[in-house]
Amino acid sequence: MKKFMDKDFLLSTPTAVKLFEDYASKQPIIDYHCHINPKEIAEDRRFENITQVWLGGDHYKWRLMRSAGVDEKYITGDASDREKFQKWAEVVGKAVGNPLLHWSHLELQRYFGYQGVLNGSTAEEVWQLCNKKLAEDGMTVRGLIRQSGVEVICTTDDPVDSLEWHKIIAADSSFETKVYPAWRPDKAMNIEKKDFADYIAKLSEVSGVKIDSFASLKEALVKRMAFFNDMKCCVSDHALEYVYYAPASENEIEEIFSKKMNGGQLTADDVKRYKTMFMLFCSKEYYKMGWVLQLHYGAKRDNNSRMFEKLGPDTGYDCINNYAPSSETADFLNALECDGSLPKTIIYSLNPNDNQAIDTILGCFQSSEAVSKIQHGSAWWFNDHKTGMRDQLISLGNLGYLAGFVGMLTDSRSFLSYPRHEYFRRILCNLLGELAENGEFPDDIETLGEIAADISYGNAKRYFNFS
Amino acid sequence: MKKFMDKDFLLSTPTAVKLFEDYASKQPIIDYHCHINPKEIAEDRRFENITQVWLGGDHYKWRLMRSAGVDEKYITGDASDREKFQKWAEVVGKAVGNPLLHWSHLELQRYFGYQGVLNGSTAEEVWQLCNKKLAEDGMTVRGLIRQSGVEVICTTDDPVDSLEWHKIIAADSSFETKVYPAWRPDKAMNIEKKDFADYIAKLSEVSGVKIDSFASLKEALVKRMAFFNDMKCCVSDHALEYVYYAPASENEIEEIFSKKMNGGQLTADDVKRYKTMFMLFCSKEYYKMGWVLQLHYGAKRDNNSRMFEKLGPDTGYDCINNYAPSSETADFLNALECDGSLPKTIIYSLNPNDNQAIDTILGCFQSSEAVSKIQHGSAWWFNDHKTGMRDQLISLGNLGYLAGFVGMLTDSRSFLSYPRHEYFRRILCNLLGELAENGEFPDDIETLGEIAADISYGNAKRYFNFS
Amino acid sequence: MKKFMDKDFLLSTPTAVKLFEDYASKQPIIDYHCHINPKEIAEDRRFENITQVWLGGDHYKWRLMRSAGVDEKYITGDASDREKFQKWAEVVGKAVGNPLLHWSHLELQRYFGYQGVLNGSTAEEVWQLCNKKLAEDGMTVRGLIRQSGVEVICTTDDPVDSLEWHKIIAADSSFETKVYPAWRPDKAMNIEKKDFADYIAKLSEVSGVKIDSFASLKEALVKRMAFFNDMKCCVSDHALEYVYYAPASENEIEEIFSKKMNGGQLTADDVKRYKTMFMLFCSKEYYKMGWVLQLHYGAKRDNNSRMFEKLGPDTGYDCINNYAPSSETADFLNALECDGSLPKTIIYSLNPNDNQAIDTILGCFQSSEAVSKIQHGSAWWFNDHKTGMRDQLISLGNLGYLAGFVGMLTDSRSFLSYPRHEYFRRILCNLLGELAENGEFPDDIETLGEIAADISYGNAKRYFNFS
Repeated sequence: MKKFMDKDFLLSTPTAVKLFEDYASKQPIIDYHCHINPKEIAEDRRFENITQVWLGGDHYKWRLMRSAGVDEKYITGDASDREKFQKWAEVVGKAVGNPLLHWSHLELQRYFGYQGVLNGSTAEEVWQLCNKKLAEDGMTVRGLIRQSGVEVICTTDDPVDSLEWHKIIAADSSFETKVYPAWRPDKAMNIEKKDFADYIAKLSEVSGVKIDSFASLKEALVKRMAFFNDMKCCVSDHALEYVYYAPASENEIEEIFSKKMNGGQLTADDVKRYKTMFMLFCSKEYYKMGWVLQLHYGAKRDNNSRMFEKLGPDTGYDCINNYAPSSETADFLNALECDGSLPKTIIYSLNPNDNQAIDTILGCFQSSEAVSKIQHGSAWWFNDHKTGMRDQLISLGNLGYLAGFVGMLTDSRSFLSYPRHEYFRRILCNLLGELAENGEFPDDIETLGEIAADISYGNAKRYFNFS
Repeated sequence: MKKFMDKDFLLSTPTAVKLFEDYASKQPIIDYHCHINPKEIAEDRRFENITQVWLGGDHYKWRLMRSAGVDEKYITGDASDREKFQKWAEVVGKAVGNPLLHWSHLELQRYFGYQGVLNGSTAEEVWQLCNKKLAEDGMTVRGLIRQSGVEVICTTDDPVDSLEWHKIIAADSSFETKVYPAWRPDKAMNIEKKDFADYIAKLSEVSGVKIDSFASLKEALVKRMAFFNDMKCCVSDHALEYVYYAPASENEIEEIFSKKMNGGQLTADDVKRYKTMFMLFCSKEYYKMGWVLQLHYGAKRDNNSRMFEKLGPDTGYDCINNYAPSSETADFLNALECDGSLPKTIIYSLNPNDNQAIDTILGCFQSSEAVSKIQHGSAWWFNDHKTGMRDQLISLGNLGYLAGFVGMLTDSRSFLSYPRHEYFRRILCNLLGELAENGEFPDDIETLGEIAADISYGNAKRYFNFS
Repeated sequence: MKKFMDKDFLLSTPTAVKLFEDYASKQPIIDYHCHINPKEIAEDRRFENITQVWLGGDHYKWRLMRSAGVDEKYITGDASDREKFQKWAEVVGKAVGNPLLHWSHLELQRYFGYQGVLNGSTAEEVWQLCNKKLAEDGMTVRGLIRQSGVEVICTTDDPVDSLEWHKIIAADSSFETKVYPAWRPDKAMNIEKKDFADYIAKLSEVSGVKIDSFASLKEALVKRMAFFNDMKCCVSDHALEYVYYAPASENEIEEIFSKKMNGGQLTADDVKRYKTMFMLFCSKEYYKMGWVLQLHYGAKRDNNSRMFEKLGPDTGYDCINNYAPSSETADFLNALECDGSLPKTIIYSLNPNDNQAIDTILGCFQSSEAVSKIQHGSAWWFNDHKTGMRDQLISLGNLGYLAGFVGMLTDSRSFLSYPRHEYFRRILCNLLGELAENGEFPDDIETLGEIAADISYGNAKRYFNFS
């Protein structure tokens, strides 16, 4: 019987322990994709209590509470922070098999020094401890980032964003962690949305380009990309239903664009063709600038309309969309490859069944431009747990060059989420250790240690063009 | 080397053993979905020999025999019962990795006290033993149910069923197990079938409602639901290709209904729209009555037309249908949610690749109406084995609240199938034990034991509205 | 810590070791599907150096090198063989989790007696050793086959092939291994291809049948099948996107055929209907002749058009196609079953998610014509590794009759690939051993050994009609 989440948590062999302790755990963190708010870094926000940190906006936790039958009052409702914390403690205390149990305790251990178990009966003690601790120096947003050993953070930003908070952070030499914007132009792609025209108007204003055609939209985006590039952005991100490939001529896209802007009704095929050409355009621009293309697909969002009305997006009502033809992903990348403008690309699917298809697609578009130029992103969102991460690593190992993997990112909204890198590294080291102990890889700790360190940090350092 | 299927079968750690022995194994059985024949309970049927019990109607065994190259004569043909048993013994004796090996030996151990191994050379000894035993008191249908510790059985019944056998059982106070009907109106949904009109005529007669429209069909069904409700039914069941969502107006459905009743040809789209509206109607009624909606999807049935002609349905010629868009499942549940009439729902897919999509859909529709109001049903039919059950539990744990799971059901036609609950509980306890021993859950036997007991029994007890 | 790939490689229990050493490893090899060139057997080719053997045409290795960022110069380019070997050594030395690491070392151990680890620093030593060894007697193509214990090889051949090399080999009594052709008529099926008419012209010439209709195409094919049959062919092979089922009348197919031959444009539906009827025709002929139908589906080929222009097909640019409706596979087999002409069939999907659907389809079409008449082919191509093979075996065990499985084949272009049979047998024995040691199968080494030997060799021997 191993102690609950002790120092050898998830490390089941001596080799795994060695790899984690001597190699992986010593690496800094490059969090190349997340959703934290740069304003809170700039202002160095401090949290009043643990409920605000943990339950203020974490839809993972909300979902689990709802699944356990907790009333919405105690989730996003008007119950007190203490009451909400009590409900959460009761739920997490019985959340066997769920990664939130592990994430929560990693956070309690690393940031609050709490070695016990959170559940209904310890809730009060944890509440007191955490809140006291949160009032201490070093427990502000910057303090949390600092003590987590974070070297680089890439936020997620809209093309119309002024990046004002990034400017402030960049100008402040007292903060060592680099905070770069990342370019996420989803609103310019989602032509089917009601507010598309409003967004185009905004982009027009911000870019200073009168947008009355797809051509002028592209011009505006190029301008904004240049601005982002000046702000040291070198990563993009796209949320897609799946990676579309329905190419169309410039004329056709102009017609679709006009139709939309004139209040016309688009067909599903119009939308798909527009999005295809939008994505091809963006990708080619990224290639020119040396940016990385990130493709996140496979989510169906805001499924509960009743709750969407009340709470809006990103509140825990998303699910996996299991329709994603691998043939279109391959055709999309091929179109860029043939054009000589395929950027470095990271592909993430929310459907874990896509692992093998993705890993075989990668292999069709690699080149000497980078080690593992086309990457399979780390197990994402609903897959961000032991099973999901292990499956992604094994699939990538079977079908590709695992040693070249750029590894973990938090994809998180929380400043306490950095231990997920530790979680990932433990799972990685355990797998590597297992292979060595089982005679499936040579007992060569130096090579294994190098691989562990590279996947934890070195590969990302080399892959992205951070300045 | 562990002994074959001894007392610690499938239990690989001391914690697993403790959880099984002290908690899970002590719980009664609620078999909330099965296909046993209530007549046989009412009449307290006795079986002549082990072939009749085991091979009389068990298409799982038939398939395995066919796969091993056994001639149909020895399966559903005119060979003697002893000959058939011989063939079965030879096949099961080599059925490495197949759950039928385990089910058969659990039954031999629990009901017949046989601790050996069934194969070609022990067939005679087992034949003698079982047949002798079957002649004893307590080996009738009721005796088997009684010794299995079954508290509740829900059968599967057509809306036109008179439920006469349920009445007889309910009136007989000498039988402690509760036997409730469950509502399965597939024939009223399957508008594409040739015998639809015949079925409607029958339903018309039984309900006393003249059915000449979709509106009057609904009226008839409501009447029958009321009758089933009086008979203490509180569970429904539906067999679907997948969970459709193609909503249509009342008028459109009336047109489709008329077309069919007048001998017209329906399009695939007609059928899908009719089924969508049928399912929405039923679900809303269930919500009113506090019934549970069960959705079984992903089967393609009767694939071998040649054998279907000879043997009819449910004879071992079904397979997994791998087309099931998760987006429609989500949209269907959302339509009910928006209407304020989403009943408690249990979703089962025959395709194990759907596990993760289902588990993420659940999370979008939970509420405080029940702990885990929307459930992911236990690994079903072709997945009812160690791999399938473990994968379902792990996926539910990763993505939802495993502690709220309503657990196992046999889905069986056999009165010897209750040890499948034991099989499930062993797999469950082994997983829980593994997580604790591995430091992934606190070493807190009380909490784990409570979870094990709840999933084995308590959750189902609380979830269903059994009277 | 087990030594890297020692004698107990992949065997984790005493039972597994016993099964491998005493049963599986002692069996000859029947390699019933591969892509080796019969000319090289006939001429008993000798290889100049290890790069020619290993990197001359092995797209598995090429992909891995590209994934590691190696320049194409060192893969298919003009670098020297020594330089290419160096790059390969560096990559494989870090290929943790990849089967190429294992395959390469099995080959080094079995054929070259090298017990060390290949990586950048041992490359020179391995280069010298291998090249010296390759110059020895017994290291020609025939020598390699002989020392591998290969009893039967089935190559892969086009209907227009003269099979001249097969004739030479058959006539040479000094070579004990049987080398049979296998029939792969893909070019006659791929009516959508540009060179279809050219191919038909060639087939017309070779068969002596003037092909101006689908009827005459069938006549030509029947003639060529008779020739192949005379040459002791008893296995076919088909590469499909997926197993289509869109039946059409003879007239419709004739129209489609005419349209194509007259330079017309076919619709996707035309193509699908033609392919369906082509496949039904072929399968029925196979049934008459007692041939086995092999269906390989789920690949999307030549995805990188830029590289396809340079290197042509089979150069490492293929991926998994994840669209394959199981319903059509079932309907296709049913059409043959209803016609009374379903041949023995082996189904392989490149998408590992199809395992369970396939295994349930098998069960619908078994008969006493053969033990496991319909087979689930061994984990193929991208799945040919520990994870893929284990998953296929477990799925087949859960859902079918594993003991009847015809087992491994190399599907390879290399004469050094026979240790993949050993790799498979180790994984098989480890699984069987695990089940026994875990109490999930009786501790009956004789039965288990028989199963291990049968899956390694005996089942294939009995299943195919080799003369």
